[in-house]
Order: sequence, then C-alpha cells, then structure tokens
Amino acid sequence: MKAAVLGYGTIGSGVVEILEKNSALIERQAGRKVEVKYVLDLREFPGDPVNKYLVHDFDVIANDPEVDVVIETMGGTGAAYTFVKASLLAGKHAVTSNKALVAKYGCELLEIAREKKINFLFEASVGGGIPIIRSMFSALRGTNIKSVTGILNGTTNFMLTKMLKENRDYADVLAEAQALGFAERDPSADVEGFDACRKIAILASVATGKFVDFEDISTRGITDVTKEDMEAAAGLGLSLKLVARYEAMGEKAGAFVCPAALTSQNPLANVNGVVNGVLVDGEESEELLFTGPGAGKLPTASAVVADVVEAVIYSDRTVYGGWTDEKLQVEDISGIRRQYLITGTGAGAYVTEPMTRAEAEAKAAGGRVYPVL
Amino acid sequence: MKAAVLGYGTIGSGVVEILEKNSALIERQAGRKVEVKYVLDLREFPGDPVNKYLVHDFDVIANDPEVDVVIETMGGTGAAYTFVKASLLAGKHAVTSNKALVAKYGCELLEIAREKKINFLFEASVGGGIPIIRSMFSALRGTNIKSVTGILNGTTNFMLTKMLKENRDYADVLAEAQALGFAERDPSADVEGFDACRKIAILASVATGKFVDFEDISTRGITDVTKEDMEAAAGLGLSLKLVARYEAMGEKAGAFVCPAALTSQNPLANVNGVVNGVLVDGEESEELLFTGPGAGKLPTASAVVADVVEAVIYSDRTVYGGWTDEKLQVEDISGIRRQYLITGTGAGAYVTEPMTRAEAEAKAAGGRVYPVL
Repeated sequence: MKAAVLGYGTIGSGVVEILEKNSALIERQAGRKVEVKYVLDLREFPGDPVNKYLVHDFDVIANDPEVDVVIETMGGTGAAYTFVKASLLAGKHAVTSNKALVAKYGCELLEIAREKKINFLFEASVGGGIPIIRSMFSALRGTNIKSVTGILNGTTNFMLTKMLKENRDYADVLAEAQALGFAERDPSADVEGFDACRKIAILASVATGKFVDFEDISTRGITDVTKEDMEAAAGLGLSLKLVARYEAMGEKAGAFVCPAALTSQNPLANVNGVVNGVLVDGEESEELLFTGPGAGKLPTASAVVADVVEAVIYSDRTVYGGWTDEKLQVEDISGIRRQYLITGTGAGAYVTEPMTRAEAEAKAAGGRVYPVL
Repeated sequence: MKAAVLGYGTIGSGVVEILEKNSALIERQAGRKVEVKYVLDLREFPGDPVNKYLVHDFDVIANDPEVDVVIETMGGTGAAYTFVKASLLAGKHAVTSNKALVAKYGCELLEIAREKKINFLFEASVGGGIPIIRSMFSALRGTNIKSVTGILNGTTNFMLTKMLKENRDYADVLAEAQALGFAERDPSADVEGFDACRKIAILASVATGKFVDFEDISTRGITDVTKEDMEAAAGLGLSLKLVARYEAMGEKAGAFVCPAALTSQNPLANVNGVVNGVLVDGEESEELLFTGPGAGKLPTASAVVADVVEAVIYSDRTVYGGWTDEKLQVEDISGIRRQYLITGTGAGAYVTEPMTRAEAEAKAAGGRVYPVL
C-alpha cells in the first residue's frame, strides 16, 4: 500500500517518521507493507530527507493509481476539503487530523466513503492520541450514551491549571502559553472555545449517528475567568475547567462549551495541564474516562497511523459508518434548570435554576456563572 | 443472528437484559437483528422470563446451526473451555468475559478462530466495561508499547482506598468488602493477586502478539499491607495500590503483580474505590489512561454485547488476530535495580537497588518493600 501525506508540518512530519521507523511493526499488524510515496507541501525543505517524496501539485497524487491512502494534515477547510474529497472520489482511503474539516464536511465525506466502500477516518481530530472516536464507534456498540463530557483543548486546560496552582492572572498565563508555543499569537480558537466546539460536535455526531452542527452549539470560552473565580470555586472543592459537553435529550441533543465547575467526584477534575480527557457516560457501561496527550507531534501522528493501518486492513469495506446528514436539533440548554456556581459573592454560591436567571444574579453581584458538573 | 448465552449468573443475565432492551439500537449498529435463542444453565429459574430460552444441555446449542454466536459467562476453565472450543470448532463465534479461560486457553482458542475465519472476543475479561483490549488491538496499531500498568482488581482497590481514607486495618476492610459482596468468602483470588495476574497476562499477550503465561508472572497480593505502610507512603505523597504491570524488555517481557507506591504524577494514583484503570505507555502515543467500572452486571455485560455486535458485523473474518502460541519469556524483574519504598523505618525510605536487596533491608527494619511507579 502506498500513502501520500498532505502537509509536512508538525503532524505530517510525525506521520512520515512513524511510518518509516515502525514499518516492520506496521507490516506485521496490517498484513502488508505501507510506504510513503508522496508528501505534498508548497514549501521547500532543503537538505531534509522528505525531498525524495516531495511534490507541490496535488494532481500527481490524485492521478497516481498506486496511492491507496491519502493522509491530510494541512488543516483548514479550503484545499484540505478539495483534496480529501477528490481522493475519496478517486477511491482512495482518506485519514485526517483536521477537526475543522470533519466538523464542517463530515457528512459529505462519510457519505462518499460509504458509497465507495472505502474509509474516511479521523481519530486524531479529537483528543490527539486518545482513541476516543474508535472507542465510541466500536466499544460502546449496544450501549445508550447519556452524555459525553470532554476537556478537549490542552491550551486552555494548561492555562486554567496554571491560574489555579500558581494563583496567576489570565493575561499572565496566556503570555506564558504563547511563549511556550502552546497558544497561537491569535489565541481565539482556543480561548474562545471554538476548537472545543468543533470537537464536541464531532463526538456528538459519533455518539448519535446523526449530524450535530457545531454552529448550533452555545460556546463560551475562558476569557472572563478570573483568579478570584478559581479561588472561590476551589474553596468549595470545585475546579474550573473548559468543558465541552453533549447530553442525550430524547429526540434532541443538548450541547455546550463553557467553563464549568467540576466537583471532586467528577473524574475529569484530575485532568490537569495540557492533558485532554473525555468522560463517556453510558446507561449500561457507566462512566468511562479516557485521558492522554491531546496534542503534540508523535501522539497525534500515532492516532493518524492507527487509522492508516485500519484503512489498510479494511481496504475492502467501510469500517465505521459514521453519521448521516440527518441533522440533530441542538437544544439550547441554558433555559434548563440545573445547578450553577455563582461567583462575585465572595465565597461563591450554588443556585439551581435556569442559566439565564443565574447569569442575571451573577451580573448583579459582579461575578460569573459556571455549571456544576 | 441467533445467540446462546452460557450461564445465567450476574453477567449472563445482564447480557440477556441488554440484548433485549437495546435490540433496536443493536440492529441499527450491527445491520442485523441479534436475538437470544438459548440460555444454558443447570439451575431452574421458576417464574423468570429466561425460561423461554432455558436449556440444560449444551448439545442443543452445539447442534443448532441457527446459533451463530455463543456467549460464555460461566467462568472457570472446565465446562467453559469445553463449550467454547466446541462452539468455535462448529464455526460459531465465541465471546467471553472469563479471564481464567483466556489466560489459560487463549492461544488454542484464538488459533481455531483464525483457522475458521471467525471471532473469539473477550473485551469483558479485563477491566469490566473499560474498552482496553480493543483499544490496544486497534487504536495502538503502529505504536511501540513500552508498558501497560493496571489497577485491575476492584475489590483490592476498594480495600486499599478504605484503609487509607478511613485509617483502618486490612482485616477490618476485608470484612466490609465481604459484607458488601465485593469480596468472596474465600478472598484469595483477589487479595493474593491471582485475578490481576491473569488479567495482566492477557494484556501483555495483546500488547506483544505472543503468549505471556500467567504462571510465569511474579505475584504478590495485598495481605501484608498494613495501615502503617499506607501512612508512611502517604507522608511521602505516595499511594499504595495493587498494580499489575507489563514492561517491554527487548526480546523478553517484564511483568509483575505487586502493591506499588504510586507518585502523584502517576495518572493511576487517582483511581480509587472499585474503579479499574489501565495506563498504556506507548513510545509514540505517550501515556494513555483508561478508567471505568472494573466489574458489575451491566458494565461488564455492555463489554460482552459490544463484542457480540463486532462478531455480527465481522461475521466473515477474524477481526483481531490476538496472539500466537509463540511463548514470550518473562524476565524476573526483581533482580533489576529500580526505585523502591521501604517501610518499617517510621517515615519510610527510598532506595534504588535490586528488589532482593531492598527486601532484605525492609525485613531487617520489620517493614515491607514497594516499587515506586
């Protein structure tokens, strides 16, 4: 089997590294040799061994019948979409680490894969190296999934952990995260919750087999979380974390991205730093927690490689059907009565009422409101 | 597809319950209806709806060509072995929750399944509802697994958590565990580590694709752990947990079951009570933690049902090859220098030396020795 890697950035170069270094292991597990034939990138890499694979024109890959698997690690929804769709239409399996692509075009790409009896796989798009997507597809068959709650953004989890443990301000830890390369110069995708929103939309679609549109999900980031809020929460035994959550609600879905106050009973409360965690609560399976590195070159690339091996093993069938384009209505859960923590009142106060009312009370107290999970 | 359940105990009755209650969900996911046709048990269940399925003679199942999947939840290595082997030889998929069967006869049963191009699946045999086996088989393809460390026995983890949090003696918490039904009247399978030993042997075989014999694994239980040891460890920020561990060691395997002192950096340190946890450290994936209910009727049955659905979906091929009968030599790791905690010296002391020497020092101090992980 010949593979083409689109994009020679952090993840793409990690994929090439693992496919070459572990080629004997992969051949044993896949039952066939898997070789990189092309790497597509517009840039040049003078002196890099990647040059023996490097091409600048996607058509070389699209038109080469020897290429069985296309691995997209470019990011974005422009060329990535065009190239992945063209690959699938040409009968080539596609593997991606690109959450934006899956959240926006998953329905269409999965439909093409099912029609062609090939695979469109995206384990690395959520939770980096954590095998959460295939666990939900395969291990939870037969179980009614009640909720999926994730700490899905390592940058913000790193920042909130720092704010709490070192009693520091938001702006201060953001600057450190940027200096360490965990946060972008424009950090909005992370701190405004947009990244986590796309990821929980994907997990909700996996959980239900229907399309959950990320644009329907109420999303609040961490930009207004203060160290005083963290302290008030800690005083009550709660940790503030940016949480992305899906809840089954009959024929609808409940979903939000929001900083939440986790009790010490919540297994996610111990997920600190750049680590990601996903808690899946099934009616029969009960609470299953998956944690691991949510980003990083080799962990994310290892999830891509596992998908490549899966595509090679199941080259004659679609291994996970994914979801259809039937759209699942997302209920705005801020109108539903539940327990909230209100800050701004010194010690912090619990209320059980709709979020809209809790927000009004918090505003009057000069504080903020956090769902208690 | 018609299924037969062998044994109508806790897990078997949970399997029947889920297959019936979630039949529509399962039909959608499996692409076919899955129906219970028989339940084998020597006992009678007057007034129980199971009577419409109940048979007392395995031959009824073996000789019925309509039965595609046999689900073994009897336990033990006597009749369970005979029946599972006969089922596979008759071309029927087999699913089991029985760790003793898999640890002892896994090689032979997997070989028959591969020859017949059918499935022998056993997700529920380790970690109850935690999808650790299929994660290792499928999500970690292409990754070099360096170690697998598990808290695989809920009973002993419950007991050790109680000893620490409530400052109680071993005998006292054992009596409570027995009263609550978590521990058997003869608790030796749990407290001597025999249960955890079989489970880590299975995970080591999954990790390597070779046969790791549980009889080769050095096993020490929790019977000599005192509350003074727990306190000395806690004073150093360590938690004592019964840990089962596999380590890759070149062409050999290192493995042991032993109470170990976990540092607060170890993700398993927060796995408390009856919960199980497995930490898989891969060279590329880094540390992945899986936690969840390690026992219980519905969680364990949910793992069995996921295997049944997998067998139905992949009815024409062996989905996980498992391991061969090539035996992996298990190295006695007690001779290897590593860090240990020695108790009996009041505050506890760290040493870095072979276990045999640490043991001698601990004995002289009237204490015990725990590997630091």
